[in-house]
Amino acid sequence: MEGRDLLDRLDTLARVSERPDMLVRRFLTEEHRRASDLVGGWMRQAGMDVRIDAIGNVVGRYEADRPGVPCLMLGSHLDTVVDAGRYDGMLGVVTAIACVGELAAGGRRMPFAIEVVGFADEEGTRFGATLLGSRAVAGTFDPAALARTDADGISMAEALGRFGLDPAAIGAAARRPDELLAYVELHIEQGPVLERLGLPAGCVTAISGATRFRVEVEGEAGHAGTVPMAGRRDAVAAAAECILAVESHCRERAGLVGTVGIVETIAGAANVVPGAAHFSIDLRAAADDDRTAACERLLAQFARIAARRRVAIRPEKTHEGSSAPMAPWLMAQIEAALMAAGVSPHRLPSGAGHDGMAMIAIADIGMIFTRCAGGVSHNPAESITAADAALGARILLGFIENFQPRQSS
Amino acid sequence: MEGRDLLDRLDTLARVSERPDMLVRRFLTEEHRRASDLVGGWMRQAGMDVRIDAIGNVVGRYEADRPGVPCLMLGSHLDTVVDAGRYDGMLGVVTAIACVGELAAGGRRMPFAIEVVGFADEEGTRFGATLLGSRAVAGTFDPAALARTDADGISMAEALGRFGLDPAAIGAAARRPDELLAYVELHIEQGPVLERLGLPAGCVTAISGATRFRVEVEGEAGHAGTVPMAGRRDAVAAAAECILAVESHCRERAGLVGTVGIVETIAGAANVVPGAAHFSIDLRAAADDDRTAACERLLAQFARIAARRRVAIRPEKTHEGSSAPMAPWLMAQIEAALMAAGVSPHRLPSGAGHDGMAMIAIADIGMIFTRCAGGVSHNPAESITAADAALGARILLGFIENFQPRQSS
Repeated sequence: MEGRDLLDRLDTLARVSERPDMLVRRFLTEEHRRASDLVGGWMRQAGMDVRIDAIGNVVGRYEADRPGVPCLMLGSHLDTVVDAGRYDGMLGVVTAIACVGELAAGGRRMPFAIEVVGFADEEGTRFGATLLGSRAVAGTFDPAALARTDADGISMAEALGRFGLDPAAIGAAARRPDELLAYVELHIEQGPVLERLGLPAGCVTAISGATRFRVEVEGEAGHAGTVPMAGRRDAVAAAAECILAVESHCRERAGLVGTVGIVETIAGAANVVPGAAHFSIDLRAAADDDRTAACERLLAQFARIAARRRVAIRPEKTHEGSSAPMAPWLMAQIEAALMAAGVSPHRLPSGAGHDGMAMIAIADIGMIFTRCAGGVSHNPAESITAADAALGARILLGFIENFQPRQSS
Repeated sequence: MEGRDLLDRLDTLARVSERPDMLVRRFLTEEHRRASDLVGGWMRQAGMDVRIDAIGNVVGRYEADRPGVPCLMLGSHLDTVVDAGRYDGMLGVVTAIACVGELAAGGRRMPFAIEVVGFADEEGTRFGATLLGSRAVAGTFDPAALARTDADGISMAEALGRFGLDPAAIGAAARRPDELLAYVELHIEQGPVLERLGLPAGCVTAISGATRFRVEVEGEAGHAGTVPMAGRRDAVAAAAECILAVESHCRERAGLVGTVGIVETIAGAANVVPGAAHFSIDLRAAADDDRTAACERLLAQFARIAARRRVAIRPEKTHEGSSAPMAPWLMAQIEAALMAAGVSPHRLPSGAGHDGMAMIAIADIGMIFTRCAGGVSHNPAESITAADAALGARILLGFIENFQPRQSS
């Protein structure tokens, strides 16, 4: 478990790309297959039995000290965004394989099986639907997604066929809850919190739920020179007030982040009082109640702004996803592993989505975050140190070695 | 001077359009020629000598009681924006002709000549340069504009040639200052002030100067879920604060209007903390000092916002035009004409640009504004009443009948 060896494997994986100038590896592409073959080979070297499941996940199993017992499932995803970094997803797969390799090298078997999954699709880059690999394993894959098409007009069903899979048989990828003791994932933080705290790793509390809105503001267009300030119904000024309300609301409340990532005048011109604008809101919180309360308060505030400015503000909810909380018993064992590795056990939410959001349907979930440079992710500048990679693997191994399944109550 | 007759002429002019579905009449088009012919015919009926000058303005002259004396110049423009109203510009030409017609019908000559000009281009719709007609008369036409091309790639020089004019001879349209006693224009307000005050007409104090900026804001893009609020350098939130600063600054100061007509994220996405945005500012004031001071204060405020938010805010000045103040002696005579017509002489600035901005180079200028419905202009919904049109013509006629040239000091 040398850090350098882990980074070498990640570099090798990063060379499996659909484009020579950047890393992009989408679901069911030839590069997806080559990445799975590479990872499958490493799994076999680590003593695992390897198979490709019905959705294209690569699954390695390291048997327990006796056959047919439930597994601790580890893993992450092997697909990428366009122009991706090389650690998002892959680090969790490579470190999990390294941990099993350590056990195998010592001839050790645990009282539980270990499975490592390289999920075929988490990012949703090709078909615009995310978590396809983990949803299939969790039995929550929506067959309607098979009709989705990629940029070339190829449907997911067709792409599965070309990959050698049967779209009608995806249900076979689903696992029963009693086959899994837990699902645990190691992942780069994709944010700056651990780096700012000077910590190489941390324990995730929850994958934040998110609510998104598209907000339209309609005022009244007018001549920028002739309409007095007092008589204006300015859509941009109203939007600006809403945007600052989102910011100050989220600044004042811990655990809440809110973003206006898009704002745009509709048919705007420099010399026209703007009659219409729209903007987006993305609100996230580890606790669903915090998020729901924030949405309610903000929409009420928007209504007051609209009344005062005599404009229409129309928020349309475009997405709502609940929080996926980590199981407290797994968090306790992850914290113990952090401490055993000499790392102060800091707890932090995950603002980004992960496969645990699907896996929680059939298993308790836990996550270990590792530090990444500047919090940068989904970007070729994504970076981690060999030391942090090695430490992450050591924490994960410590967790596995001391893993105690949940006591049934 | 029946209001209905004035509106009939404006309706007739409005049928001279390049498109059947909307009013658009651009400089040097066949419709420009037809409108000039129509207006020239009305001028002749009113007893004027008519000519088309070197830039395509139609100019009618009604001689004084003796030949060769300076003129009071009246007029406005005959070109339109795309999908225009029928009163912007044309009302000033049609009422001026009607006034001269009244004098001629009574066999009356004044001790000064009267010229009425239908300017060939004020809006700049075709070549993106405004006030072409009045600049030529004022001798400030920039020959570099001849190389400008329209949407079909036709240069202004070429268009002049097709119209039968010589691009090299535009200087012949220029008038000497000693030929003009004043330039006075009647125009619809294009704003809601007179309507709100319940006044059919008013006396313009100045054509506001304007400064425009394009402001770029550069922060740092980040993941909407993983970057804590406290660490953000959000370009949109910074822009929103600037936008509200423009609004509140102009609200607090009489005589100043400020507009952010365009705002846009650059490569924005709903789930990304915005790294870049831009917006426009249009600031206008009747007094140049007020406008200049507002620009300085706002840019200083932007610098403070930039420092506090750790973003770059880069304002680029894209336009600066000084105020064109009306001559006090002309304002006094216009106010007398308003009062004689039973109208309380309200003074107001013009936030929109007019031919007086060019004419001020060779003459003292004055303007009469008439009420328009809802302040709507540059829009087919532009509307005035027959009574207001008739009253406007009566005020203009009263002004002419009592016109006293400026006493040389």
